Amino acid sequence: MEQQRKAYGWAARDPGGLLSPFTFHVRENGDEDVTLKVLYCGICHTDLHVIKNDWGNARYPVVPGHEIVGIVISVGKNVQKFKTGDSAGVGFLAGSCKDCSNCQEGYENYCPKSISTSNGIQPDGSTTFGGFADIVVVNEDFVVHLPDNMPLDKTGPLLCAGITVYSSIKQLGLNVPGKHLGVVGLGGLGHLAVKFAKAFGSKVTVISTSSNKKNEAIEHLGADSFLVSTDAEQMKAAIGTLDGIINTVSAHHQITPLIFLLKTFGKMVLVGGTIQPFELLSFSLIQGGRTLAGSLIGGMRDTQEMVNFAAEHNVAADVEVVPIDYVNTAIERLGKGDVKYRFVVDVANSLTPAL
Amino acid sequence: MEQQRKAYGWAARDPGGLLSPFTFHVRENGDEDVTLKVLYCGICHTDLHVIKNDWGNARYPVVPGHEIVGIVISVGKNVQKFKTGDSAGVGFLAGSCKDCSNCQEGYENYCPKSISTSNGIQPDGSTTFGGFADIVVVNEDFVVHLPDNMPLDKTGPLLCAGITVYSSIKQLGLNVPGKHLGVVGLGGLGHLAVKFAKAFGSKVTVISTSSNKKNEAIEHLGADSFLVSTDAEQMKAAIGTLDGIINTVSAHHQITPLIFLLKTFGKMVLVGGTIQPFELLSFSLIQGGRTLAGSLIGGMRDTQEMVNFAAEHNVAADVEVVPIDYVNTAIERLGKGDVKYRFVVDVANSLTPAL
Repeated sequence: MEQQRKAYGWAARDPGGLLSPFTFHVRENGDEDVTLKVLYCGICHTDLHVIKNDWGNARYPVVPGHEIVGIVISVGKNVQKFKTGDSAGVGFLAGSCKDCSNCQEGYENYCPKSISTSNGIQPDGSTTFGGFADIVVVNEDFVVHLPDNMPLDKTGPLLCAGITVYSSIKQLGLNVPGKHLGVVGLGGLGHLAVKFAKAFGSKVTVISTSSNKKNEAIEHLGADSFLVSTDAEQMKAAIGTLDGIINTVSAHHQITPLIFLLKTFGKMVLVGGTIQPFELLSFSLIQGGRTLAGSLIGGMRDTQEMVNFAAEHNVAADVEVVPIDYVNTAIERLGKGDVKYRFVVDVANSLTPAL
Repeated sequence: MEQQRKAYGWAARDPGGLLSPFTFHVRENGDEDVTLKVLYCGICHTDLHVIKNDWGNARYPVVPGHEIVGIVISVGKNVQKFKTGDSAGVGFLAGSCKDCSNCQEGYENYCPKSISTSNGIQPDGSTTFGGFADIVVVNEDFVVHLPDNMPLDKTGPLLCAGITVYSSIKQLGLNVPGKHLGVVGLGGLGHLAVKFAKAFGSKVTVISTSSNKKNEAIEHLGADSFLVSTDAEQMKAAIGTLDGIINTVSAHHQITPLIFLLKTFGKMVLVGGTIQPFELLSFSLIQGGRTLAGSLIGGMRDTQEMVNFAAEHNVAADVEVVPIDYVNTAIERLGKGDVKYRFVVDVANSLTPAL
């Protein structure tokens, strides 16, 4: 596919990772495509890793951003689900093979040929540019409708962080009332895990290495209780009390003590990938028939379902909205965990064409 | 409860673990109890660990044996399920609290107050004596019926090894036709995992560190294929091919390469507890939404179901039947893995009263 339509945004050019204005081309809107004028775009930890080439896969220049909220400004002739003027969202995925068993079953997130919205490789070998830009052109199957009542500035983070935790809870069958769920880590993913778990009707315990976030977790986010994982007494008292744990931590940590918090047949799901291997004591799983699972983002069917559920239950991210020229500072602060809980770039109101 | 009824068997007296004739007392048959004359008793790895006090929990003298097949010789007045002359079996569990949520739901194996058949602690503080004895007295809820057509000498191992693998496959929902299951390790547990998986209608791949057992696995046990885990080429070609893996290995090994063999949403279950912690790469679970679970023996409802299923599908253990005075040699050989696949002591025909 030719990259013909002129676009502009901010890009990183090298592993220094600093973003600066960038003019580029995207493909013309194809027959099955939707073009969005970008309104807001969240900043995810993945963006930070990619622009600094932490994973060795950066394809510079990188236009980051895969938590995109926008307005449909053109639709291809075969597009069935969208019309001009619709509010719409694009998350981590902008394409997949649509043919493998994962795609057939609605799990495009596990398609071996899935295409990332930013820094992804298109079938013609060209690179995808993300949402720190005026427009994005995306196949309609990878665009979701945003119900009218959603606060658009707080919706972007749902499309990556939100679907990641929503889908993980659903995968374990814990999206039903009356469960007692633990949430480990209270960042972009964790704060949404608390909100979704509460919306599913769960009792929620936030688990953290220090008590710093206790008031915040309980009074602001609505968690029911707080457990300090470095407090041996507290941990011992909580053994066998949880139906499930959503573990959002991507720094190395001990998982065996967390597994022991689960009831018989309890399940912990990992959504924050760690680089260093975990140490896992097999008896923590064997005793109690417990389960440790992993979950990666979510499929498109689940993403639309998640957005609809969020609209119905007033689940939205806590965000700090910033202009595009603050993005380097925002990324630096994100690296230090200095945000409650997600930066969102107000793209439409702050992005100007690059000179 | 008083230990009044005289019994005799073989016991270990100290961590040397050598068994020798032993006369002792068991409780009189209570109102809810069944007394079995022991016919056969399998030898499990757990027996080996307990008699040598490997886990620090031996209560000498230890009469091992928890894969017991026998004939009912007396029943208490409230016993409803058994009558004199019935063939019956007793496995790892001889009691539980019957009151906790695990017991209420049929998972006595996860009851925190469960009582082991051998070396267990009864409510009065006395020790349970296992199946290397002329009789055992057990609450009827922990005794299973053995259908008429079962080969009694090959049935004992089903009651611990068999239920362990059966229950683990069922826990993961893999007890349905058309799955492709891997079995890691081909010992007492593994050979029964192959047989049950085949009986459930699965395609079965045996996974082992060497090709030594390939012919045995395929030609004798009926596995469909064989995978050498130390062969990088074979392992690479098998990535993403299995719906589930029953991991029966209790020696330390690498589990991450095994997890990568699973399809999207595939599940591996650990049934052979290892002492040393595993190294687990979180991405192996996150990529593909995979699951790692543990499973411990099985509940009594599942144990009866498993025995009935085994009778219907002609699943029996491959055994080497030995007399009681061979038991020390058998245990030594078991420690070296020198048995296909389970020793069974022919108790009734070889045990004589201790002098």
